[in-house]
Amino acid sequence: MKKNFSLSGMPDFNPLQIKKRDYIISVIKEKFNSFGFESITTSLIEKRDNLFGSYGVEGDKLIYQILRSGDYLKKINIDLQKINYNELSENICDKALRYDLTVPFARFIASNQSEINFPFKRYEIGSVFRADRPQKGRFRQFTQCDADIIGSKSLWLEIELINLINSILKKLQLNDLIIKINNRKILEGVFESFSSNLAFSDFCIIIDKIDKIGLQEVSQLLLQNGFTNQDTDFICNLFTLQGSFVKKKEYIISKLELNSNLEQGFNELSFIFDKISKISTKKNIEIDFSLARGLDYYTGTIFELVSLDFSGSLAGGGRYDQLTEKFELKDVSGVGISFGLDRLYLLLEKYNLFPSSINDNIDFVFLNFGEKEAEISQLYLLKLRDYSISAELYPDAVKINKQMKYANRRGAKFVIMIGEEEMKNKNMTVKNMISGEQQVLNFNELLNTL
Amino acid sequence: MKKNFSLSGMPDFNPLQIKKRDYIISVIKEKFNSFGFESITTSLIEKRDNLFGSYGVEGDKLIYQILRSGDYLKKINIDLQKINYNELSENICDKALRYDLTVPFARFIASNQSEINFPFKRYEIGSVFRADRPQKGRFRQFTQCDADIIGSKSLWLEIELINLINSILKKLQLNDLIIKINNRKILEGVFESFSSNLAFSDFCIIIDKIDKIGLQEVSQLLLQNGFTNQDTDFICNLFTLQGSFVKKKEYIISKLELNSNLEQGFNELSFIFDKISKISTKKNIEIDFSLARGLDYYTGTIFELVSLDFSGSLAGGGRYDQLTEKFELKDVSGVGISFGLDRLYLLLEKYNLFPSSINDNIDFVFLNFGEKEAEISQLYLLKLRDYSISAELYPDAVKINKQMKYANRRGAKFVIMIGEEEMKNKNMTVKNMISGEQQVLNFNELLNTL
Repeated sequence: MKKNFSLSGMPDFNPLQIKKRDYIISVIKEKFNSFGFESITTSLIEKRDNLFGSYGVEGDKLIYQILRSGDYLKKINIDLQKINYNELSENICDKALRYDLTVPFARFIASNQSEINFPFKRYEIGSVFRADRPQKGRFRQFTQCDADIIGSKSLWLEIELINLINSILKKLQLNDLIIKINNRKILEGVFESFSSNLAFSDFCIIIDKIDKIGLQEVSQLLLQNGFTNQDTDFICNLFTLQGSFVKKKEYIISKLELNSNLEQGFNELSFIFDKISKISTKKNIEIDFSLARGLDYYTGTIFELVSLDFSGSLAGGGRYDQLTEKFELKDVSGVGISFGLDRLYLLLEKYNLFPSSINDNIDFVFLNFGEKEAEISQLYLLKLRDYSISAELYPDAVKINKQMKYANRRGAKFVIMIGEEEMKNKNMTVKNMISGEQQVLNFNELLNTL
Repeated sequence: MKKNFSLSGMPDFNPLQIKKRDYIISVIKEKFNSFGFESITTSLIEKRDNLFGSYGVEGDKLIYQILRSGDYLKKINIDLQKINYNELSENICDKALRYDLTVPFARFIASNQSEINFPFKRYEIGSVFRADRPQKGRFRQFTQCDADIIGSKSLWLEIELINLINSILKKLQLNDLIIKINNRKILEGVFESFSSNLAFSDFCIIIDKIDKIGLQEVSQLLLQNGFTNQDTDFICNLFTLQGSFVKKKEYIISKLELNSNLEQGFNELSFIFDKISKISTKKNIEIDFSLARGLDYYTGTIFELVSLDFSGSLAGGGRYDQLTEKFELKDVSGVGISFGLDRLYLLLEKYNLFPSSINDNIDFVFLNFGEKEAEISQLYLLKLRDYSISAELYPDAVKINKQMKYANRRGAKFVIMIGEEEMKNKNMTVKNMISGEQQVLNFNELLNTL
């Protein structure tokens, strides 16, 4: 059996896949730029302590840890016989691969706060790593495209992000996606109305599992954690209720006593729904009180971009008020959105939405008839490339059949033949690979036809 | 003292740095494309076994290893008390961060051989990782820009790579760089003329240290490994001899008996020098018999791009005949070049060669005079962005002074003010931030001025 040298969930991309990915990235970048976001990159590796504790207990397990260099055992003073793997990891790993782009962004902000012009709008497109079970559209190394604004609590920023999402979708011709929106304060307000053994963050982690395990199972988990049947009935009703934000809000008000979290959450969402209805041409935002998002750090608005015929979200984000506190910077609120490149790719593939230019390939392949001929070809190649035309010489003077087959598979637009005859007459035979037509031209004539 | 949350040698890049890096990358990509290279990406993480042993003993020490997920201690059956760190690493790490782009490329070739149209020209631009001491222009995470051709032994490919280097240098306006060239076969031929305790690969590693420790120290190391004084005298003379390829070649022939490695190496270099002199307008290649390159896998031509006023190389590469054998694919020769983005950056910075467009920034900043005004601004923003104009609204209705200061630091070309008066008259005050001029325009008039 052939040995497999590749790692599961760690993808390579071939030239055609790269062109498709680059197309999506170019659209996202264009829109990020036009919305005023500036590009930064953060390192792929973070201090271990920067990451652990930022994504909840479940998140910690998915972080890739990097071994210290050199003789790391010499420096530690522990009984290896009695140690468990978690303690050992802590002692022999000081670095880890980033899990998302948001925590590194918070670190970047804290490290560079004196030079940053707040409110700071940045984008970053890059790889992140999670030691999760690989699935379709879900790799262990995957690409996120993040836009965040940090240093303002203005709800206009939520609106900007919704407009940003829609302007990207429009350009990608993805028309039927829905932006689900909620507010962590409302979830917290609901949570406060019940008594349980849970911390609010654990409540969110349970709610976040609905897509995976279903509402029934989620109810069971809540019951096991001190919720009453009446509580879970209310939650199930709320989560399955159809209708507008106002209708669902009224349902909550009719059943629960208002608290400050509920009130604030309602106010924030009201502002967003009101402004979007006035400004946006697209009305694809929907309230979803069951939306929780697994990540620990959200404190206000949360949203997800979903497709009706695609499980899992294509983008997600929200507001975080305390993210930079871990890095000793207080009172800096931010809000952001993260697009999953790999999933957008699957969706565009499914709907056949990549532009036909994706298939453009090399302009010229020069066949190789021998050393003298190749030498002349090389001179022409250099000139063509100065005009940004892509051109190459087949490296070996092998059978012409084999060379033509290569040029064909390569998708060459033209094949150039400079044999003995052409060398003598200082011209070349140009074969149009689409029409099959052949012409004898000198180099200037060739340039004129382009 | 302020805590440092960033890792040494793991760089972040701010918006201006990103623009400069993107400029270099865009030039390199343009030239890679025009020379017929296609873009792929390989995963950042490789199986540990794919990397260890590929870069020599020194290289192994610089590889970042990734801990297995879950309870990795449960699965191993070793006496932790007696184990050394190397053995433990092997048992608890199954993955590692890539060290260069060449070995992952070899794996990619082996994994995808049935679909690849050989000879295959690929490029990849991406991060690699080495646990080395960070220095100026030398990070632990750094970016390589690699172009390789695999599946042909043709020496025209070496010529193509030299032309490629020069076409990139021309576009970047880096005029004074030199391409040093050598051939591992000549080094091996010289090595075979002496008897020593060394393996050839160790001989190369020692020779490669000249830049760091000097020729004197290198001689000492060779003497310690069985070389005679006569041998090292010859080597020192050869390495310090000035002049052309032919002159240096004759020196070797006058002192050593020809062997097949010497002969083949001379033939290959002769072809390259001959063709370059006929084809290239730029004659910046220089023979350097002391050039060894540290990496284990080279077997033929090797080259490095150096600057007289900059230590260390800006690009390096060579031919490898057995690289894919590790991945069970035999008889596939390849040749490639790798540019170090971070070093090119330093050089362009030093010579002030970045184009002025690097400083282009956001086109429009709309000031925020309150909720109603902001709502109108939002409508205009969406329209401007449809024309790929970059525009944003200051998110908070704070003091105008503060907002103007922000717009200034942001490098905005225009500031737009829509206050009560403008709202009433359905127009806006447009301030040109370069000239300081102010105009009152309606939206169509604004569009017409652009």
